[in-house]
Amino acid sequence: MKQDLDRLMAERNLAALVVEGPDGFDSANPDFNYFVKSEHVNGVVIKKRGAPAMLIHHPWERVQAQATGLELISSERWNRREIAREFPDRLEAAVELRRRMFRDLGVSGRVGCYGTVHSGRNYTLLTRLAQTVPDLEIVGEFDKDILTTARLTKDPHEVEQMRRVGRKTCAVVQAVVDYLRSGRAHAGLLVTTEGRPITIGMVKRLINRELSAAGLEAPIGIIFSQGRDSALPHAEGDDAAPLRLGEALSLDLAPREINGYWHDMTRTFALGYASPELQQIYDQVQEVLERVVANLKVGEPTKTYQEQVCAFFEERNHPTIGSAYPLEEGYIHNLGHGIGLEVHEQFLFSAQPGRDDVIAPGAVFTLEPGLYYADKGYGVRLEDVYYCTPEGDFECLTPFPKELVIPVAG
Amino acid sequence: MKQDLDRLMAERNLAALVVEGPDGFDSANPDFNYFVKSEHVNGVVIKKRGAPAMLIHHPWERVQAQATGLELISSERWNRREIAREFPDRLEAAVELRRRMFRDLGVSGRVGCYGTVHSGRNYTLLTRLAQTVPDLEIVGEFDKDILTTARLTKDPHEVEQMRRVGRKTCAVVQAVVDYLRSGRAHAGLLVTTEGRPITIGMVKRLINRELSAAGLEAPIGIIFSQGRDSALPHAEGDDAAPLRLGEALSLDLAPREINGYWHDMTRTFALGYASPELQQIYDQVQEVLERVVANLKVGEPTKTYQEQVCAFFEERNHPTIGSAYPLEEGYIHNLGHGIGLEVHEQFLFSAQPGRDDVIAPGAVFTLEPGLYYADKGYGVRLEDVYYCTPEGDFECLTPFPKELVIPVAG
Repeated sequence: MKQDLDRLMAERNLAALVVEGPDGFDSANPDFNYFVKSEHVNGVVIKKRGAPAMLIHHPWERVQAQATGLELISSERWNRREIAREFPDRLEAAVELRRRMFRDLGVSGRVGCYGTVHSGRNYTLLTRLAQTVPDLEIVGEFDKDILTTARLTKDPHEVEQMRRVGRKTCAVVQAVVDYLRSGRAHAGLLVTTEGRPITIGMVKRLINRELSAAGLEAPIGIIFSQGRDSALPHAEGDDAAPLRLGEALSLDLAPREINGYWHDMTRTFALGYASPELQQIYDQVQEVLERVVANLKVGEPTKTYQEQVCAFFEERNHPTIGSAYPLEEGYIHNLGHGIGLEVHEQFLFSAQPGRDDVIAPGAVFTLEPGLYYADKGYGVRLEDVYYCTPEGDFECLTPFPKELVIPVAG
Repeated sequence: MKQDLDRLMAERNLAALVVEGPDGFDSANPDFNYFVKSEHVNGVVIKKRGAPAMLIHHPWERVQAQATGLELISSERWNRREIAREFPDRLEAAVELRRRMFRDLGVSGRVGCYGTVHSGRNYTLLTRLAQTVPDLEIVGEFDKDILTTARLTKDPHEVEQMRRVGRKTCAVVQAVVDYLRSGRAHAGLLVTTEGRPITIGMVKRLINRELSAAGLEAPIGIIFSQGRDSALPHAEGDDAAPLRLGEALSLDLAPREINGYWHDMTRTFALGYASPELQQIYDQVQEVLERVVANLKVGEPTKTYQEQVCAFFEERNHPTIGSAYPLEEGYIHNLGHGIGLEVHEQFLFSAQPGRDDVIAPGAVFTLEPGLYYADKGYGVRLEDVYYCTPEGDFECLTPFPKELVIPVAG
């Protein structure tokens, strides 16, 4: 949580954090949005140990900057035109601007660098800064960096936002179910009351309208895939394909509020009926999810649950990545991931060597067991988001029922 | 243009380009989207000089990967679990994965790095790669990097997409004008036919619905600001404020298609009437824009036009950044910027020392003169997008009229 930052900085011996918020990244800058609280503002956040975070922002954006609640510094405090005259090379001008900022704001020593940037440009700027500014050590944390670590556990204000986006996401999925129920069966297809086949694209357009009306966006795309495609976890589905009765239909919806928090949920449906084979797979996926949830415990390594799921499926003769890697059929992925200002945070339910993730109070994560059989023409996945409360209880943030078959009239 | 890449690589002595497309950046990764053509796919693009670009992608995303038209390589070619066992430190594992990729794909020598990444994490990975992989020189171009340079000039396929997003954006602005015209005057405010005051927030909700219906998104926010706020170029406007007759209303709309191209247009309106003073300012902004457009010439340095605008305004007794910097009132910013897969590309109509931008065939850019007077309670800006054709003609991609006053009944 944000309140842990000074303690984490002391543990890592960091004098300051510099969080880049350049133009053009917006929602795709979780480190920066963590500080500016989803305001549409560009700039740089600098937090020195033991001091409140500062936002260096353009004066044109002072209205948004004020709404962040951060200490504000106008970027005009440093005269960029004067620097450009003195340093015609643009790299040297950028280095000089940073040098003056750091000097005037008292930033020196071990400085951690965060935020979303352009690869080569940023690499060169940081390399040059490290070479030319005395008393400055650029620290680029690779694994479990301080902001990723702080962001893994959510404070009550963040959880309230995550509950809200969860409720909104469920409402969108409910609208999809209502729409599918409004169709009727004809020659093996789902058709409208006027007899026109309902396609995947029509459902996706409905989803986009519902997301927009709810103030959500789905920048990673919407997975709504049918039959054999549903066995490929990231296949988005063929817009032109009509919906066929009895096929597995996977809807994996991961929206976020603008510059804000994500949700991620999956339901698998079958229209009208399901084969006993598909129903059996579905029941197994649902059962293993329920077992994992019943066993969730604060302080437990997440790999316990991945191993539990692998064991459950292997007892039922499914291949799993517990025994073979990589794998194309059966249980082929991790059980879940952290979620917050990124859809996939650096917290995994994985048995991969070297991972030591543990469930902490404040963690918010998905659980998404699945079974995939392309040759049989189906995949099943169920996914909910869970929150580990400060008391070590677990709250589901995806209040939506799990039922495979959607009844269809006609 | 993309076809220039091999020539540019030869000029810069680059053996290969590595373009990162990590999870979580989506539309905010213009370098990567330039290659994958807006498909929802993650991975790495590697282009060796004289060879077609390759996409290293996860097999789950093979449907999207195939749609890119790139040469495809499965990320499972390298066994990450085996690497993780051999290299328990995650940084060393990441370095080893890159080392094997580069070895197996024949990438060595001077390698340029691009794409959207996390600052510190990427800095550390590149630094470590440069230290440990023999025959590899990491090149992080700072100014006018090769992809920025290639992207500045658009090929006909890109221009077609930019025309389309331009038309769609104009249709959204037309919907706003139609909505405002549908209101009536009451006690100095614009009200609905039921007599309820129309607020900035109501108009923004309309804009969001229209954008969504057109398949557009506005991740940098919508500027719709009134009166004194309109004199602050980036103030987004107060949602709760009712629209007042006779005030300057600035609508600056910059949407993009998902993972695609941007448009950026601004109109200033006044409801019912405008003071002679506001009308005069408006006429001056419109006149200088028309003069600039009439003078546009391929091969001309862009600073010529910025200087022309400053001279025009100074003759009319407005302060300009041609004479004073920074500046809060008058003509306070650059005349325009390149636009494409980023809303602000590295191409400016600026007289800043050290800039040497020149109008090239294929360039697409905004022109957006404005005058801002917070103390007088108004700002005026007009902005269109222009395309320089291969023949050196100029096409406006923002076919929308410029009229200050929107007539209001009642």
